[in-house]
Parts: sequence; structure tokens; C-alpha cells
Amino acid sequence: MAARILRVNMTKLQTEWQNFPEKYKMLGGRGLTSRIVADEVPPTCHPLSPANKLIVAPGLLGGTTAPQSGRISIGGKSPLTGGVKESNAGGVIAQKLASLGIRAVVVEGEAPAGELYVLEIEENDTRLRRADDLAGKGCYEATDAIWDRYDTKAGVVIIGPAGEMRLTAAGISVTDPNGSPGRFAGRGGLGALMGAKGLKAIVVLTDKTFAAPYHDEKRFKAAAKRFVEVLRKNPVSGQTLPAFGTNGLVNVINEAGALPTRNFRDGRFEGAEKVSGERMAQLIKERGGKTGHPCHPGCVIKCSNIYNDKNGDVLVSPLEYETVWALGPHCGIDDLDAIAFMNRLCNDIGVDTIETGGAIGVAMEAGVLPFGDAQGAIELVKEIKKGTPLGRIIGSGAAVTGQVFGVRRVGVVKKQHITAYDPRSVKGMGVTYATSPMGADHTAGYSVTVNILRQGGYVDPLTAAGQVDISRNLQVATAVIDNLGLCIFIAFSFLEQEDSLGLLLEMINSKTGSRWTEADFTRLGEEILQTERYFNRRAGFSEAHDRLPDFFAEEKLPPHDVVFDVTPAELNTLFNFRQEVRKDAGKAASLR
Amino acid sequence: MAARILRVNMTKLQTEWQNFPEKYKMLGGRGLTSRIVADEVPPTCHPLSPANKLIVAPGLLGGTTAPQSGRISIGGKSPLTGGVKESNAGGVIAQKLASLGIRAVVVEGEAPAGELYVLEIEENDTRLRRADDLAGKGCYEATDAIWDRYDTKAGVVIIGPAGEMRLTAAGISVTDPNGSPGRFAGRGGLGALMGAKGLKAIVVLTDKTFAAPYHDEKRFKAAAKRFVEVLRKNPVSGQTLPAFGTNGLVNVINEAGALPTRNFRDGRFEGAEKVSGERMAQLIKERGGKTGHPCHPGCVIKCSNIYNDKNGDVLVSPLEYETVWALGPHCGIDDLDAIAFMNRLCNDIGVDTIETGGAIGVAMEAGVLPFGDAQGAIELVKEIKKGTPLGRIIGSGAAVTGQVFGVRRVGVVKKQHITAYDPRSVKGMGVTYATSPMGADHTAGYSVTVNILRQGGYVDPLTAAGQVDISRNLQVATAVIDNLGLCIFIAFSFLEQEDSLGLLLEMINSKTGSRWTEADFTRLGEEILQTERYFNRRAGFSEAHDRLPDFFAEEKLPPHDVVFDVTPAELNTLFNFRQEVRKDAGKAASLR
Repeated sequence: MAARILRVNMTKLQTEWQNFPEKYKMLGGRGLTSRIVADEVPPTCHPLSPANKLIVAPGLLGGTTAPQSGRISIGGKSPLTGGVKESNAGGVIAQKLASLGIRAVVVEGEAPAGELYVLEIEENDTRLRRADDLAGKGCYEATDAIWDRYDTKAGVVIIGPAGEMRLTAAGISVTDPNGSPGRFAGRGGLGALMGAKGLKAIVVLTDKTFAAPYHDEKRFKAAAKRFVEVLRKNPVSGQTLPAFGTNGLVNVINEAGALPTRNFRDGRFEGAEKVSGERMAQLIKERGGKTGHPCHPGCVIKCSNIYNDKNGDVLVSPLEYETVWALGPHCGIDDLDAIAFMNRLCNDIGVDTIETGGAIGVAMEAGVLPFGDAQGAIELVKEIKKGTPLGRIIGSGAAVTGQVFGVRRVGVVKKQHITAYDPRSVKGMGVTYATSPMGADHTAGYSVTVNILRQGGYVDPLTAAGQVDISRNLQVATAVIDNLGLCIFIAFSFLEQEDSLGLLLEMINSKTGSRWTEADFTRLGEEILQTERYFNRRAGFSEAHDRLPDFFAEEKLPPHDVVFDVTPAELNTLFNFRQEVRKDAGKAASLR
Repeated sequence: MAARILRVNMTKLQTEWQNFPEKYKMLGGRGLTSRIVADEVPPTCHPLSPANKLIVAPGLLGGTTAPQSGRISIGGKSPLTGGVKESNAGGVIAQKLASLGIRAVVVEGEAPAGELYVLEIEENDTRLRRADDLAGKGCYEATDAIWDRYDTKAGVVIIGPAGEMRLTAAGISVTDPNGSPGRFAGRGGLGALMGAKGLKAIVVLTDKTFAAPYHDEKRFKAAAKRFVEVLRKNPVSGQTLPAFGTNGLVNVINEAGALPTRNFRDGRFEGAEKVSGERMAQLIKERGGKTGHPCHPGCVIKCSNIYNDKNGDVLVSPLEYETVWALGPHCGIDDLDAIAFMNRLCNDIGVDTIETGGAIGVAMEAGVLPFGDAQGAIELVKEIKKGTPLGRIIGSGAAVTGQVFGVRRVGVVKKQHITAYDPRSVKGMGVTYATSPMGADHTAGYSVTVNILRQGGYVDPLTAAGQVDISRNLQVATAVIDNLGLCIFIAFSFLEQEDSLGLLLEMINSKTGSRWTEADFTRLGEEILQTERYFNRRAGFSEAHDRLPDFFAEEKLPPHDVVFDVTPAELNTLFNFRQEVRKDAGKAASLR
């Protein structure tokens, strides 16, 4: 079927199919959400205004047999940062949309005050259904209510009470193959944007999963099959991630002296072992949970897991490194069950675990509760659901929490909280945090690969030299991976195995009929970043926003006693791309 | 005595006298605070960091016999806006500092955590005294404690609990000739900056008031005397302001359809009469209060007042139009006693009445309490002093309140709340709100003069044409008035009486020995604005920040059913000054 866009006007409560524009042909996922934001959203509009748009887009390879192609990108002008935002998640929705030929769902306007809707998408029909009965319901309960009405084979995109309250740490949940709303497009407050539209959920009613059209199906499937082998051969994506999930990083990053502890006061946490991936895997095994769990059909890395409580009942799925860090070491908490319980609460409320943990750490810095107080932290998370003033502060993220409590040691860039790698001892990550158009975001240019895991070379994480180049290359490559809708963990093979890029290009070309080479691949990544920068510049961002908070340059981080010393002048060179890019790239919509 | 700067290092707990730099010769008040901020404060530093500086500076004509020359400018990088900030107030402090030859007090660093200090300034001695006993005390009680220790002839600059809590709506109080801490440098959160330094108060121990040195005293005093006559002759500064205070504007602005009511939903308030200047003057008379009260020695306009409660006891002094509006019509409240009581509470807590009223109106918009609920509003203000989460939200200002409660109809520019003139029906004010480097600030370029009061010509307030020119000219002139340390209300004579500018120049030249002409006057104003813009640009501001919130362009304001329709392109021309200004003016420190 012909590629199409579903336009949803919440003001008029109407939907409309639109032919997919030729100029967007090679765009998907983040490339497409950012392009539509840049083309259609007034840069200075209030993020909660009807003029902002919520865009849900599978990647260019979504709905194909390419392994790891199930990421769904959700974009808009960020209620948290005020800039362009794309946040992606696993789950089943990307493949379902792509299988229906839907390249993007674009939600515009806003529903009449006090009204809440569910958008139902079938192959040949769409409906906006009043769903006031779901108002205030947590993601788990609301998803259950949706299953009661539809089939569990439906894919669901849903917000919790945090999104309905328009809290700027609110994320958007996506159901996984088990039907659990545990996959999260958590970052940037996009849940608040969906809430402002009056949209509680999007339900995609189809059984189709791998039904996207191909230019040359046979050629594509051969390349996809070979790519599976490449991923399985790589030691990180083939062994470490399936065994310990992302949380295997706790011990690695702690050993490197880069595990931010008690709001960035230390690079090592004395309780690291108790929250490590090894410990987690052991508990999962003892309690009958599951490691090696796929977050979407066709995932061969399977870094996800199902973490059970002491009684053997499912507590949360998955439990991830960034979450464990944010709600654990960042807050001085070493109780993995407490962390997993907070993770479940955050999922239910629909708030980003990273931003929430960041905010709790800042509240601890302010003396609202002591570092290490797991029970107090749990109560704080519960306050968010209640919508109390304190809960709303935490649910608004770390920057607001710092402002309200008069704290200046707040680890945010563009108002978004830094993640589980201290920028002083993994300086490449510091560069990414500072410069990504998305605000502080580890996934935007994950230098841990080169700085710590020694995949794709090695650059000393403790010295400033070379970090900008690493971050630049990774940010460009990541933008393309996000465009394709692939899981970021394919990057490990990409960095180490020479046939990896060739197979990606083969998949792109046999999917679309294009004749892309490596140069096109790089050009696309650069143009996506420039598109995002162009929007951000018009929204009011400048080089002054591409900076880490002062204290990272002033306070030495134990145990290596290092500060962040990549200079502003060096940071300013990040977007000096090595290949010539058209000056009007930011304005250009055509990326072929 | 030679002009000097007092440097106060709160980290080292040391003070140091510094000769006043020749390059700053013609700078005082806002011109000097903004210049020092631009020269010495790292633009991207956190406003609460030790690198930020709090600067207290009398105007160039401070401590002279010039009428209305008692304004004190307080500056720094704003904790509220993140940009350069100057907020000025009346009271006795400017004349005392200037009489000691002190052109600026510059407070740097930060005191050890948990320690609180009072800075004592005598003519030949300074001390930093531990003042932990004043911690948490309101401005009234703390000032009383200071009077117990010193003489009431001392001048006091002080913060309340809001500043100690580093709340971004916290202001700085200055004592008036009666010894009451009722004069306020309220805007931009500078109280939080003073709190972050660990400084509770500055006490200037001198009886001197008009002892600043002159180049030619006789010539100066002759000009000053003639200027008094000019002010007395002007109908606004000679009659309206002494009789009704600034609050005489309630009926005028309401009649013009520009009194923002219930968070900018209407331009007329049905309860306007009950909170009007006429009603206020009547109550003051009945209760034995006072109108025609001077805020500083040498004031001949005397727009201040003393407002008594029903029992005839002093409730607050002064009660001003902007405050009455923010805590009254903006919140749908028509109870003048309730408004005056909230004003007293705000003064005691040390928060800006405009920002606090703005935040309460936003909380009403969010449904936290209904519009018109005076008792509820009083309780909200009390929450600030208690430091509860809700109180801290309100005390952080309207932008944060809007974010936390998920409200997008928030009338802020650069995070600072708009004041008592709806930008849709006084469009010149809209231009000033949008473009002032200070954030939304009526005093920065008070077009009400031309749009409503028909002083200095007339431009229809309801149409876009000509508004940028008015605002530009007024912003330039205001910057100079703020540099001189004069009360903004001299502008009425300035606009109407031709000899006014000549007398100002005569005072400047006989005070300093300069030979300034009108062109120098204008050039100084332009350079001050450029200095501020240059700092803001480096701090991360761009044209995207020179915009009003969306809803002013979208929602028609009754009764005139107008939107704000000055275009972004027109707003961008505001700083195209008519005379040639050196391109490096922002960098240049010399303004002679």
C-alpha cells in the first residue's frame, strides 16, 4: 500500500489520511519527527499550545525483517527543554504502524477542555473515542482497561496521570510484546504534550508486524539475515547485553569512577554491587523472572528483562541501567527492590525515571530528604501521582526542583537531566550532553563505547583531547540509526565489524530503491542534526545553551579528581562537520 | 572624598576599598550595575553561583540636591530571567552611599554554608558581622532588630525569608525615611542572589544625605532648584501623583480597557472602583494615614502613602498601583484591605508583589483556588513564608507556577511577569515587555505616557503603528534616568516641558565637569541597552526571547477585542538606534 501520514486534529476531532510526501522519502523515526517539527511547529510557541504537534513515527526500516528495527520515535517541541525533541522506545507499535503503511501520526490542536480521547487506528478506519473513564488512571490500569475493550494484539501508546497533569517530566508509554506498557519514550516531557492534546492513548488495531513494503524483498531479507549474524557475533550485543541487560554497566562504570553518586558528588558508589547487573540477574533467576527478553518482535539482542518481587510476582519489565542509576546511586540508594518498585511507580504514573531520579537527587541535595532514604524516595514518587505541590515539583523535573528549592548543583543541560555517566570522567559523554539538540541525552552520542568499552577504538575518558570528534561522529551516526528506527545497540557492531555499514546500506537500498553510499549515510545524519539545530536556534537556543552546569568544571570528581575541561571553544566546533553540507540544509526538506 | 567601590568577598569574608575606575566616570545606578555585570560576571554562570555578583549603586546624581535623585539600583545576573538585571527602589540608601563617596558595593563569592551575615558600612570602616539570629526573620522584624542595635538613621538593605530560601521571586527591601523597609527592588529575583551570598542585610551607618561632591556646586544647586519648579508645574508629577499616588491609574487604565483582569481575560474589572486610587485616598484620609508621602529625602513628587487598617494602625507603606493590580484585578480580587494585607505579607517575606500576584493568578487559572478568593490568596502568600512546596512554587514566580501546574496562559517574558497594562490595548507597553533586556518591565519604557496619558504626544494604544518607535525612545531615555538615579516620574516633565532636558544636562555637567549635550545623553542610553543586550546574548538570549506569549496574539481582549499585532519583524527593529553606535559598544567600558 502507498505510504501515508495520519493527521489527527484534536480541535476539530477529525482525522485525515495524507499521502506521504516524496520529499520525506528517506526519512523515518527521528529524522521524520524532527523534520516535521521544523517544517510545521512555530519555534517560539508554548510547548503546550495547540500549535505544537505530537508526531509518532516508525523508522525507515520499521515493519521489515531487519533485526532491531522496532523503535518508535515520538517527537514535538519539548515541554521540558523548549527545543526540538525526539524520544524513542521499543515495543510493538512501530512495526504495526509501518505494516499499515503509516509513516507518521501527526497530532495537532487540542481537545475541548476537560475532554479526553483515545485514537483508534485500523488499517482502513480511524476513530477518536471519548475516554473520560480513563482519566487519572495509571498506565497499567488504563492499559488493562484497553485490553478489556480490544484485543491484546493491539499496540498501545499511552500516557499516565503525569501526562494528563502536563508535567514536564511526563513520558509516553508503549506496550511490549507481552502487552505490558513498560517501554518508554521517557525523555523531554512529551507525555505533557500528549496530555495537552487531550489524548490519553493511541491504539493500533492490527495483527501485522513485518508487513512493510520493500523495493526488493529478497535482497532485503538476505541482508537482514546476515545482519542478525553480525549482531550475534559481537561480544556486547551477542553476550553481555542478553545476560545482564543494560544494567551490566553498573559495575563497569563504577569501576571506571564514572558512576554519578549522590547528585554527582562521587564517581564510585559503595553500594554499586548491590544494584549491579550481576546481582539483578541472580535475583531474576532466583525469583523466576526473565533475562534475555526482547522489547519488540525481531529483537535478537534481547537486553530486556522481567524483574519479579520477592514473592515471584512481576514487579517491572524491564529494569534498565539508567533507571537503576537515577533512582539508585544518584540518590545514594542501594536497594534494588526499592528501585524496581519506584520504576514500576514511575511507569504507572508515566514519568521519566531519569528525570524523576534526577529531581529526587536534587531534593536530597536541598535537604528535603536525606541521601539514601529509599522509603522517602518512594513516597516522593507517590506524591507525583497524587498531584500534590511537592509531587508536581518532582514531576516537573530536576531543573524546576532545583529552582524551587534554591539549589544550584543541578545536573541538567537545556533543562534535561544528565544520565548515568559523569561527564568529568567520561568526557565524551560530557560533550554529548552539552551539545545534543535534545538536551542532556546519553543515547544521542554514546561515547561510552569508545571511552570505556573500547568498541571502535579507544580515547582516554579522563582527558579532553579527542572527545569532540568522538561525540560528533557518534551523534551523526546515531541520528541515522534513529532515522532507520534501529535500536542503538547495533552501534556496537557498527563500530567493530566492517561489514556492518555495508549491510545497513544494502537494507536501506533494497527497502527503498535508493543507491545510497556511506557518504549519503553521513550526510543524512548531519542534515538531521542541522535541522534540529535550526529549529532550536529559532526557538531561542544558542551556543550558550551548549554548556554543562558550572560545577562540573569547578568540583573535582573522586576517585580520579577530574573536572570537565573540554573548553567552550572546543564545544562550539562540534557541528563543524567534516563534509561539505549545504548552507540551507536546515531549511531543506529533501534528503534523498 | 575620592569616589570608590566597596568590594565584599563573602567567600573570604573580606571587604576592600577600590578606587572608582575612571572608565566608569559617567556611570551610576543601572548604567554602572549593568556595566559591572557585563564586565565581571560570566554570562553562563548559574545565577546562584559564587561567580555571580550583587551590585548596589546609587545614581550619578545620588547624594546631590537634585530632586528625585534617591533611587538605588541593585543589579546582577537575574535568578529569575537568567539575564542581566537591574531593579531600583527609593528609600534612603542611595543618598547615604553617595554621600560617603561610594559609587558601588559589589558583593562576590558566597559565605560558608549555613552562615548569615550583615555588612556594616561606616565612612571609614566596614565589617561583616555574623547574623544567624536574623535567619528566617521577616523584613519588618529583622529591621526592628537592626534598629535595636544601631541608630534608626542608618540605611538598611535587607532580604526576607524568601531571599534566604533563594526563591526566584525574592526582592530586596530598602528602608524609607521613616525607617520602614517598604521600598523594594522587587523584580528579577535579586533577593535570591543576596541570599545565595549569605548576606541578610547591608547597614549604612551615616547621617549624611546630600553630601556627594560636585564639580560646581553653585551651578548645580541653581539647576536643581529650577528643576523642582518644573516638576511642580507638571500636572502629573505636580498634582495627580501627590493626590492619589500611582494607584490613581486604576480608574484610568480600567477606562482605557487595559486593566488586565483574571489573568488577562478582560481589560476591565468590575471591581475597579473599589480598589481605585480615589477610594484608597478616601480610606487613607478616614483612617488617619497619609498621602503625599516622600519615599526619599528630596522627593518633591511624593506619590508614596501610608495605608492604615480599619483600626487606624499602619498596614503598609506605600500601596502602589502595580501591587494593587497584581494582587487585585489580576486575581479578580476587589478588597483593598486584603490587597494591602498581602502587600505587607509580601514585604515581610521579601517577595516581589508583581511576581507573587502574577503567580497567584496563574494558580487561579490552574484551579488551585478560584478567581476572586481573597482569603485563599492570603493563605497562599503565607505559604511562601512557611517554605512549603506550594509556597515555594508561588515564590518562584509565575513561569514556574505555570510549568508546575501545566498552565500555558502565563503572562511572562524572559520568565518575568508582565505588569498592570495589557499589551493588547496598550501596545507600546507590549513592545517594552517583549524587548526590554530586563524581561517584562513596565518601568523600562513606559509608553503609557504617550498611549494613555498623552504626555509627550499621542499614539493610539490600540494600533500597532508607531509603538516600536515610542518604546525605543522611552527605553533609551529610561536607561539614562536610571543611570542618573532619578525617579522615573521625572519623565512626565521630560516629555512635556522643553527646559527639562537642558536642566538635566546642566546638572550632569555641573556635577561631573563634563560637557554633555543631548546627543551624549542619547548615546549613553543606547550604550547601556547595548551593554545589557550583549550580556544577555552571551547568556543565551536571542530575538526568540523578545516575544510575548502566544495567547496575546491569539485571544481578543475585551472590551476593545484587540490582539497584540506588533509583528516579530517590527520587534526586531527595536534596537536599530537612530544614531550611529560603535559596533563594539557592548564591549566598551568607556562611556564619556
